[in-house]
Parts: sequence; C-alpha cells; structure tokens
Amino acid sequence: MGDERPIGVFDSGLGGLTVAKEIFRLMPGERIIYLGDTARVPYGNKSEEAIKRFGLQDARMLLDMDIKLLIAACNTVSSVALSHLEQHVKDIPVIGVVWPGARAATSKSVEKRIGVIGTAATIRSGSYAKAINSIDPNIKVYGKPCPLFVPLVEEGLIDSDITRAAVQHYLYEMVDLGIDCLILGCTHYPILMEAIQGAVGNRIQLIDSALWVAKEAQNILKATNAAAAGDTGGFTLSRFLVTDLTPNFEPVAEALLGAGIPNIEKIAVEELEKKF
Amino acid sequence: MGDERPIGVFDSGLGGLTVAKEIFRLMPGERIIYLGDTARVPYGNKSEEAIKRFGLQDARMLLDMDIKLLIAACNTVSSVALSHLEQHVKDIPVIGVVWPGARAATSKSVEKRIGVIGTAATIRSGSYAKAINSIDPNIKVYGKPCPLFVPLVEEGLIDSDITRAAVQHYLYEMVDLGIDCLILGCTHYPILMEAIQGAVGNRIQLIDSALWVAKEAQNILKATNAAAAGDTGGFTLSRFLVTDLTPNFEPVAEALLGAGIPNIEKIAVEELEKKF
Repeated sequence: MGDERPIGVFDSGLGGLTVAKEIFRLMPGERIIYLGDTARVPYGNKSEEAIKRFGLQDARMLLDMDIKLLIAACNTVSSVALSHLEQHVKDIPVIGVVWPGARAATSKSVEKRIGVIGTAATIRSGSYAKAINSIDPNIKVYGKPCPLFVPLVEEGLIDSDITRAAVQHYLYEMVDLGIDCLILGCTHYPILMEAIQGAVGNRIQLIDSALWVAKEAQNILKATNAAAAGDTGGFTLSRFLVTDLTPNFEPVAEALLGAGIPNIEKIAVEELEKKF
Repeated sequence: MGDERPIGVFDSGLGGLTVAKEIFRLMPGERIIYLGDTARVPYGNKSEEAIKRFGLQDARMLLDMDIKLLIAACNTVSSVALSHLEQHVKDIPVIGVVWPGARAATSKSVEKRIGVIGTAATIRSGSYAKAINSIDPNIKVYGKPCPLFVPLVEEGLIDSDITRAAVQHYLYEMVDLGIDCLILGCTHYPILMEAIQGAVGNRIQLIDSALWVAKEAQNILKATNAAAAGDTGGFTLSRFLVTDLTPNFEPVAEALLGAGIPNIEKIAVEELEKKF
C-alpha cells in the first residue's frame, strides 16, 4: 500500500525550504515538489486580494503535478488565504503553517502569554491569535511585524550589528510583556534564531513553525495511509521549481535548506498566471 | 504650439515618485501618468530577463495612454533594460535615471573618484560606471549594493539605530576610497539623505538622480518643442496607477512624493502581463 505521489510545498520565495528541510529530516523517503514564486516575492507586503490570487495559482500549479498533500509553507498565504485555498482544493489535504505553530505554542505556554512575529500581512491578519484563542481563549497573544528580517536573511546578515539592532528594535517590548513562547511566524526567521534568542533571553521558548508543520504532515500521511510505502527518492528525486532564477539564489537556498539544491527548474511566472 | 500630452513615468514601486516630485517642481504645468508596479515590487532582486520583461510591459501600458515622453524612473530597469526599451519604443523619447545622474556626478567630481550605491541588480550591471567612463575614462567608479535601504524606507525607519548601523555597514569603505561624489542610484535613497550624509561626511557631495532626470526631461521637452504651452493640470490632473494597493501605501507615497496622492487607480497586474 502507501501513496508514492510527492508532497507539494509552495512559498512566495525560498523561505519554505525550511519546511522542506524538516520534511526530509522526518520522512527521508518522501519526495517533494517545491514551488518558490521568486518572480513575485515577497507576498507579505501585498494586498489580501493579491495574496489570495497568487496563493491559488501556486496551489494549482502543484495540483497539476499530481501531489498527495499540499503545504502552504508561506505564513502570509496561510494567514490570509488558507480557507480560500481549501475552498478550491477538494481532493487532497491542505496544510498551512499557522495552525501547527499555534498548537505547539499553546501546548507549551505555561504563563498563557504568547508572542508572534511575522510579516506585516501575517500579523495584521491576526491569524495566530485566532488559532490560539480558538484552542484556549484565556491565552493572551501579542503580535509584532518584523519586515526587515527577511531582507536581512536574504542579505546574509545573520550575525551583524544591523541584525542585532533590528532584533532589539522589534523585540524589546515582547520581553516586558511576560511571554514565555515566541512563534517565529515566517519561514525565514529560523535562520535568525540565535540573534532572536539572544535578544529575548533563554526564558522564552522559540517556536519554529517549520518543524511543527512537518510533524503535522507526517501525522496526516500516517492517518490516511498515504505515507510512501518504500523510498520514493526523498531529497534526491525531489523537484525544485522557481519562477525566477534570482542572482542570490544559491547561498540563500543553501542556508534555508541546509544543503545545496541538486537541480532547479525555472518556470515562467506567466504559467502561474494562467492557473485560474 | 506645445504638446499637451502627459509625461509617462514608471517604477517597480513607489520610489519613482521622487522623480515625479522633481518634475512637478520644475514644470508645474505638465501632467504625469505614473505607473508603480507594486504587485511585483521589488525588481532589484530579480533576474535580468524578468526585469526586461516587466520594464517593457510597464512601458507599453503607458504608451497605450498616449504619452509624449517615457521616463523609466527605476534604476534597476534603467541599468539593465534601457536599450531593450529603446529598441521597442520608437515614437517618443525614452529617459532612464542612470545617464542624468552619471553626467551630473562627472561634471562635479574634482578628485575623479565617484561612488555609486543602488540595488544589487543596478550595481551588478555596472551601468553607472559604464556611463561615467564613456564620458571620462579617467574617473574611478566604486559601486556598493545596499539592499536594506529600500525596506528601511518602506518601514519608515528614516532616523533610527538600525538605519545608522546599516548606513555605516554599507558606506564605511566608500569614505576611505577618497570619493568626492556619491550617486544615490535608487529612487528611494533620497529619503535617507540625512543619514547617508551623516555617515560619509560633508566633504562628499550626494547626487540625487531624481533631480537630474527631471532636468533632462525639461531639456528634451524644450529642445523638441514638446513642453505644454499652457497649464495642462500639473499635479492635480495627473494620474497615479498601481498594480496593487499595498497596505503601507499612503505614508510611503507621501514621504516620497512630498504630498498626498489625490487619487489612486488600481489596475490588474494581469493587464500588464498581456502587454507583449
């Protein structure tokens, strides 16, 4: 038995590779088709209407490739467009990154005070607060948009004065609020984990959504008997599609995936725009 | 006589509004149609192929609106796609922002050492160095990409520790190189003028391309008898088109234009993509 089809993972850019990395670690036999919409990245500063349209186009591109599970590894899409995706994708399960992160934080917070950092669109949507409070309405959730973190990661400024100043600028209030869990609500942020932990101190636990969404994918595949029965190629036979071969691609992708990508396929962004 | 048609100005986003601002200041009777491709901003981290395609689509959208002059108020497009634009736009003059800035710096540099800052794509293209050295091959040109400056402006972080750390990070080498002119090779950068001048000291003159491209537009309109004979409406009757109504739109646009935009028209990015 088992389902040998690949898992589809998409993101506005390369950040979702942190999710792919955790999937390969947990389920090394599974094959992934990754789609990064690098021609239109970032989504986090776009309107809700644009985010919904782009997200559905990304999803349809992957659905046409016969996947068994769709992961929106983009916090922005997961925050403002997941139910829109679910309305249009009926045949296979769809997972976003918000619920797995929210559930993990809810189970870990003793103080019942959780912080969330992410793009402007993610925080404005209140998606994490809604998810957390539907599990436990007594938890206080504090959101803070950190729009400079993605450009810092893409600049490779992981350990620098600018990064420390930016982390301090965004997070100093969080510490005073008495949170004990901080959700990294953007797939780029795990790369800045050390700087963030340094700023908030060790008393606050960082929740990396990438890890928890991979675990949820594993649970769903097990529960539906859709895990691959044997090795379907894993990392080696996975496909990596992007809509633009951006110049800084390789070092950024390697930092996020924790490995070099064997082969990249460029698809035209116009192909996505036809997916209506 | 005179030509009552509007001037077309486009940019990947809102940065080109600094060019529009200078045009309104120099030629208050002229009407502008501004196109900001806010759905696909930024262009500076995209491939040359994508930048050429996007730039030509922006140009064609404006050409269909019967303009008398086309200004690519985007350093990235001006740097990597201007000749591509010129090949396709035959009927009206096309101006980019690189040559006006390069000419101004060349005429002002006594030490014959000029610095250029811009997006990764602008600096990688070497466009300013090529323009400057075709005027005076003895001038040494030093380029430095500053990818964090645009997100800093869009975050409203004009005067902050992060901005000072970023300016210091990118520019400390420039000072040691003995330059006497520094070209702000990105339309967002004039907003950071004070922080930049603070970092490089008063001995180095900052060249704002926006100002010089507006002067070049004025010269071309005069030379070709295409300046509006009377007042064609100026700022009040100008049109401002964007491909996405991004959430942070108004404060950013106001900072760049130096005034609130009276009316915004949203056009679908798919309309641009049809312009082939």
